Amino acid sequence: MKKATAKSSELTGRQEITRRRLLGTASAAGAAGLVVGGAGGAYGYAATSGAAPLTSVGSTAVPFHGDHQAGIVEPAQATGHLIAFDLAPGAGRKGAAALLRRWSAAAEAMTAGRAPNDDNQIALDAGPSSLTVTFGFGLGFFDKTGLKDRVPENLAPIPPFSSDALDPKLSDGDLWVQIGSDDSLVAFHALRILQKEAAGTATTRWQMNGFNRAPGATERPRTPRNLMGQIDGTNNPKPTDKDFGTKVFVSGQTGNSSWMNGGSYAVVRRIRMLLDSWDHLSLDRQERVIGRRKSDGAPLSGGTESTPVDLNKINPDGSLAIPGDAHIRVAAPASNGGAAMLRRAFSYHDGYDQDGTPNAGLLFVAWQADPFNGFIKVQQKLDRADGLSRFIRHESSALFAVPGGCAPGEYVGQRLLES
Amino acid sequence: MKKATAKSSELTGRQEITRRRLLGTASAAGAAGLVVGGAGGAYGYAATSGAAPLTSVGSTAVPFHGDHQAGIVEPAQATGHLIAFDLAPGAGRKGAAALLRRWSAAAEAMTAGRAPNDDNQIALDAGPSSLTVTFGFGLGFFDKTGLKDRVPENLAPIPPFSSDALDPKLSDGDLWVQIGSDDSLVAFHALRILQKEAAGTATTRWQMNGFNRAPGATERPRTPRNLMGQIDGTNNPKPTDKDFGTKVFVSGQTGNSSWMNGGSYAVVRRIRMLLDSWDHLSLDRQERVIGRRKSDGAPLSGGTESTPVDLNKINPDGSLAIPGDAHIRVAAPASNGGAAMLRRAFSYHDGYDQDGTPNAGLLFVAWQADPFNGFIKVQQKLDRADGLSRFIRHESSALFAVPGGCAPGEYVGQRLLES
Repeated sequence: MKKATAKSSELTGRQEITRRRLLGTASAAGAAGLVVGGAGGAYGYAATSGAAPLTSVGSTAVPFHGDHQAGIVEPAQATGHLIAFDLAPGAGRKGAAALLRRWSAAAEAMTAGRAPNDDNQIALDAGPSSLTVTFGFGLGFFDKTGLKDRVPENLAPIPPFSSDALDPKLSDGDLWVQIGSDDSLVAFHALRILQKEAAGTATTRWQMNGFNRAPGATERPRTPRNLMGQIDGTNNPKPTDKDFGTKVFVSGQTGNSSWMNGGSYAVVRRIRMLLDSWDHLSLDRQERVIGRRKSDGAPLSGGTESTPVDLNKINPDGSLAIPGDAHIRVAAPASNGGAAMLRRAFSYHDGYDQDGTPNAGLLFVAWQADPFNGFIKVQQKLDRADGLSRFIRHESSALFAVPGGCAPGEYVGQRLLES
Repeated sequence: MKKATAKSSELTGRQEITRRRLLGTASAAGAAGLVVGGAGGAYGYAATSGAAPLTSVGSTAVPFHGDHQAGIVEPAQATGHLIAFDLAPGAGRKGAAALLRRWSAAAEAMTAGRAPNDDNQIALDAGPSSLTVTFGFGLGFFDKTGLKDRVPENLAPIPPFSSDALDPKLSDGDLWVQIGSDDSLVAFHALRILQKEAAGTATTRWQMNGFNRAPGATERPRTPRNLMGQIDGTNNPKPTDKDFGTKVFVSGQTGNSSWMNGGSYAVVRRIRMLLDSWDHLSLDRQERVIGRRKSDGAPLSGGTESTPVDLNKINPDGSLAIPGDAHIRVAAPASNGGAAMLRRAFSYHDGYDQDGTPNAGLLFVAWQADPFNGFIKVQQKLDRADGLSRFIRHESSALFAVPGGCAPGEYVGQRLLES
């Protein structure tokens, strides 16, 4: 068993992984000048076939094995694919278990930068490029595998919200795979390999492609900024918070739900942004809709991005510094009995619709130990009161039970499928 | 006038730019370790609002001004948008000139990492991230601006090919913009800004999103590998070739066509790859369809990727080492009277079709001084004889006259529109 999974503390394992990842990144980046300046030629076209060292982007590997699956606490990568599958009729528990075993083997190889079985070589000569592959189960999975008695209590349908505009074809699914990588070809390769392994056992129900800023593109290290231009994720639970683990990861389950220990629940919502309407607002109005300065994410109650939001701050004219319907007020844990989730989103941009408006927005993914005390509680509040809701539209929704990570020799979901 | 545009030699200007770009990249990458290891925190989430230096990805700037437009000889970036616009009725020459002036000003600012006029701040705090913006004119542009007498002789419709499966709605266009950046948000920002500047003057006709590998993701510096897994672009003209400039850039035009000096012609083809069929071929058959080894791009006649292709090489069994219908044989300059073009493509992946096959392939962009002695001549040969044609489908086609670059104070196309 690797060091990462041998740690006793729930969080320390992944922290160690991530520290190694960051250290590896730093030292590899120091050698990057040689690659770029040396072998690229005057125009950067490769003139030789000699290999050169990977820079940090390619060389960074996120271990597949661990107490938790990868792809939850790591920074969201530059490219993402979210795919839902439905189990084929007759696949059953045995077929599902074999698929998860194949998927885990392929994911383990690719995340380590090795070729999977029967590789199509699409991303050959790439480094692992921070690839993560995360697997989850939808409610339908338990029906079709005869495991209804093991449905964990928190895997219940998300209640409808008045502002929903959901497309059932883009919602739900028996199985879910989240792929992320800092290289688009590495992510595409993983997608194709996993789809190939699914053939005969599961069919793609929906698939969404997303992106985030490239590592190193911004002055802020990996601070997400969404397609509205807003810094997004400031108030996320921090791994250094003492209750981070209990907010994000399931623990203490016994009996038929014990397979979920170390797991998490992923709420997936494709949220279209009505960008043409949004861009017509003045900067001042945009900031009051959100409650933060667009330029640096500082709350309108003052300070910098990291300054705690003061919901009670009053402007000199007597108005609330953070308006009553500001997104960050309505979404704040203090407004929702402490409800919290770890948001880890990708932006999406699928061209534009017939009316000329961009088909773009957020592939919102939220992680929590209890979705009813996380996304659902917050969204019930946002649904009624959020000033931002006029500029967004939830078009897709799904909830998945994401099991804990696996140790070498095991596969993801084994404790559900085989114990 | 900047150093880059003051050079006397046609090529030296861009070479100097690129050398500076590469050197800047190298030194910035050396500092990258500080960013990643220092400010990111254990999980990489930004815990402070302090700015940190950009790494090479963000800090690399490609000058907008020069003898040629940027976005032709530089390595293709990690993210690309290709957009065609049609001029609105009544926009006329005056409206078109004003649009090109606004577009040039916005592109110049954004490529230098500055905010454009009336910025929506989507990519605020990003570096320029190798952003390039390239403008071209389709045949319809000259009609609608009363400039039919200035249509250059090489801007004639691309003849139909027997294997074409073109969608007219995704073909042609009065104006073309190519955006590339190593950061997706920087590219999206540029797209939105240019579309906003076009409002009232031109409407989007089609728009395609593409990608390439991230800088530093591979052992080979920026060698493109397409979604079939094939190394693609090995036999491109090299900037170090003595006839590179005459192959790629227009020169020696007089009279009504003199505005095209320093320009180039861009052939744009959206080429769908039939990836499910392709992936069913054995590696050996794939390699014989292409004529190169998939792993490293070496020709089947032997050597390494950079070894010249030996079309006459015979295998011990008497067969041709490069099969008769191999893509690289049919496409080779030697098979086409020396016809050459500079290919600079993006991959695309727009999910999948109703039949479950991926809607993915290549946003093929080829640059040449004379498309009839470049893409068209090669495609006439490929259309009849290329073994690869069973696995691809040309679904979109356009040809644009891309004027030369502009000097500070000028805008792209000014010599066409104002002289």
